[in-house]
Amino acid sequence: MTERNLKVVLGSRPEGKPTVDNFRVEEGPLPVAAEGQVLVRNQWLSIDPYMRGRMMDIRTYAEPVALGDVMVGDTAGVVVASRHPDFAPGDPVAAYLGWQRFGVAEGGALRRVDPRIPLSVSLGAAGMPGVTAWVGLLDLCQPKAGETVVVSAASGGVGSVAGQLARIAGCRVVGIAGGADKCRHVTEALGFDACLDYRAEDFRQQLKAAVPKGIDCIFDNVGGPVLEALIGRINPFARVTLCGAISEVDNPSPTGLRRLLPLIVNRVKLQGFIVGDHLERWPVAIADLSGHVAAGRIRYHETLAEGLEAAPQALLDLLAGRSLGKQLVRIP
Amino acid sequence: MTERNLKVVLGSRPEGKPTVDNFRVEEGPLPVAAEGQVLVRNQWLSIDPYMRGRMMDIRTYAEPVALGDVMVGDTAGVVVASRHPDFAPGDPVAAYLGWQRFGVAEGGALRRVDPRIPLSVSLGAAGMPGVTAWVGLLDLCQPKAGETVVVSAASGGVGSVAGQLARIAGCRVVGIAGGADKCRHVTEALGFDACLDYRAEDFRQQLKAAVPKGIDCIFDNVGGPVLEALIGRINPFARVTLCGAISEVDNPSPTGLRRLLPLIVNRVKLQGFIVGDHLERWPVAIADLSGHVAAGRIRYHETLAEGLEAAPQALLDLLAGRSLGKQLVRIP
Repeated sequence: MTERNLKVVLGSRPEGKPTVDNFRVEEGPLPVAAEGQVLVRNQWLSIDPYMRGRMMDIRTYAEPVALGDVMVGDTAGVVVASRHPDFAPGDPVAAYLGWQRFGVAEGGALRRVDPRIPLSVSLGAAGMPGVTAWVGLLDLCQPKAGETVVVSAASGGVGSVAGQLARIAGCRVVGIAGGADKCRHVTEALGFDACLDYRAEDFRQQLKAAVPKGIDCIFDNVGGPVLEALIGRINPFARVTLCGAISEVDNPSPTGLRRLLPLIVNRVKLQGFIVGDHLERWPVAIADLSGHVAAGRIRYHETLAEGLEAAPQALLDLLAGRSLGKQLVRIP
Repeated sequence: MTERNLKVVLGSRPEGKPTVDNFRVEEGPLPVAAEGQVLVRNQWLSIDPYMRGRMMDIRTYAEPVALGDVMVGDTAGVVVASRHPDFAPGDPVAAYLGWQRFGVAEGGALRRVDPRIPLSVSLGAAGMPGVTAWVGLLDLCQPKAGETVVVSAASGGVGSVAGQLARIAGCRVVGIAGGADKCRHVTEALGFDACLDYRAEDFRQQLKAAVPKGIDCIFDNVGGPVLEALIGRINPFARVTLCGAISEVDNPSPTGLRRLLPLIVNRVKLQGFIVGDHLERWPVAIADLSGHVAAGRIRYHETLAEGLEAAPQALLDLLAGRSLGKQLVRIP
């Protein structure tokens, strides 16, 4: 076997916005599975917003990627060789093996993919983004039938699932997205009740019309003026899940939430969260999401980049809002 | 009996900051208790920040005071005449009778004052401000022994109790107040571990030194740059009780929280609240607080204005930060 590994490493840290030059493609020998480990050939790499943070030399809830190390990321693939009793060659698995063609994981760190769903969906609607939506919406917002739920970045990998879960819960669901194409996708393909383009000049008027009974739950991925506009229509006892704040990234002077009194007057709860804190919820969430996908109740769209060499540009596209649905890299 | 009632009514709505000219003192006949009601002679009137909001023609969680109506407010006094079986003349009671010498209440709206505590304390540490601190700190922040709790407006009627409850819970407690005199009161009389003057030029450096293990719980009454500085030292899984945002009142361009990412990265919960939502907690809170006051575990300071005619200026003093501890009006 002369096959070699292909990997993308972090070559330098961004100064200002990241560029493709911050990454470097390298070849290397195949990794070898030790006792209890499994060698996986990755077929799919998930591209996610959190990766932007790992490029920086800032310790938050996770360590940064070291210079020269393989970029981190969720992957889905097929077992090539196994020294763990639960896995055999050919098994479809999801893992956290990073931006590379082959990787080795402890058996306990692998997740068997439900055979009813495509392998790539284990990285999207039935993977980390889906679980993020599931925990953030169902556990933290606890939407009730008849309530109004607003989801920002509604066409993205997380927002698209959050909104569809809210619809399944019997809520009126309004998405916020950037541009008419994304909004059309959100209403026509994903079945949201409405979707607003936050770039529209009359966005606030559109919002007022779209939530005639006010807003009971916000699943927010963006922060900034969009969230502020939503808070302006908030109902008493509303819940806000703070999942992301993409408007603050690479923004030297964000404005955030300029008034807190509306949060007090309306007794609003805001909850920042990281899906990795909720590991005990992953199995039930993934089983639930896989069932919804298999039954067609949750639909998804994938934006594909071809080959690991295209991964850096795929991340930049995601951060710039140019991808629709789940951004993936197909690894040939 | 020729005694007449004396009352302060809202004469006009403020344009910009309120002034004493927005109020009018009036005389009138004594109110009469109907069946099931009680006539109370008020000896104490509580002056509280929420009154500022009721002067405006804005419906929030409560109706505004109508022009010409008696200003609302908590009162403590003695029963004069009772047509309710649970009360007899001479009973010490607390009620919500507004800015007037005499008032009539349904028996069910009266609260008997614990004889172990002075009547005025039923408006302060063992009244609405105390319950606000109790619910906001114990129910919403849930501080654990060894954690660090920061309380803003620490010398005020609510903050002073919140901080002492946190001390009783075994926490390190840091107060924030305006000026050296208030800070001395907070540490020396109230027993906080430290108190910082938010007006100090090196406030942020002082804060860093005062919370060496970061902040687990914030009981906030002010919002704005002070809260933002506290968020800058927040620990993972911290809780923030949003009780007030006095910095936003009469401020045309507040800056609020400019960055939400720290709330996400640290999985912070912010909870706006209104103590009136938690009526089921009042009896246990008041019993607990009365016991702490009677045992000397919770101390309090009162700033007194003499006579109902002085009530408007007392409210302005409170809003301007010129009162220390609980602002009261004594009604002769």
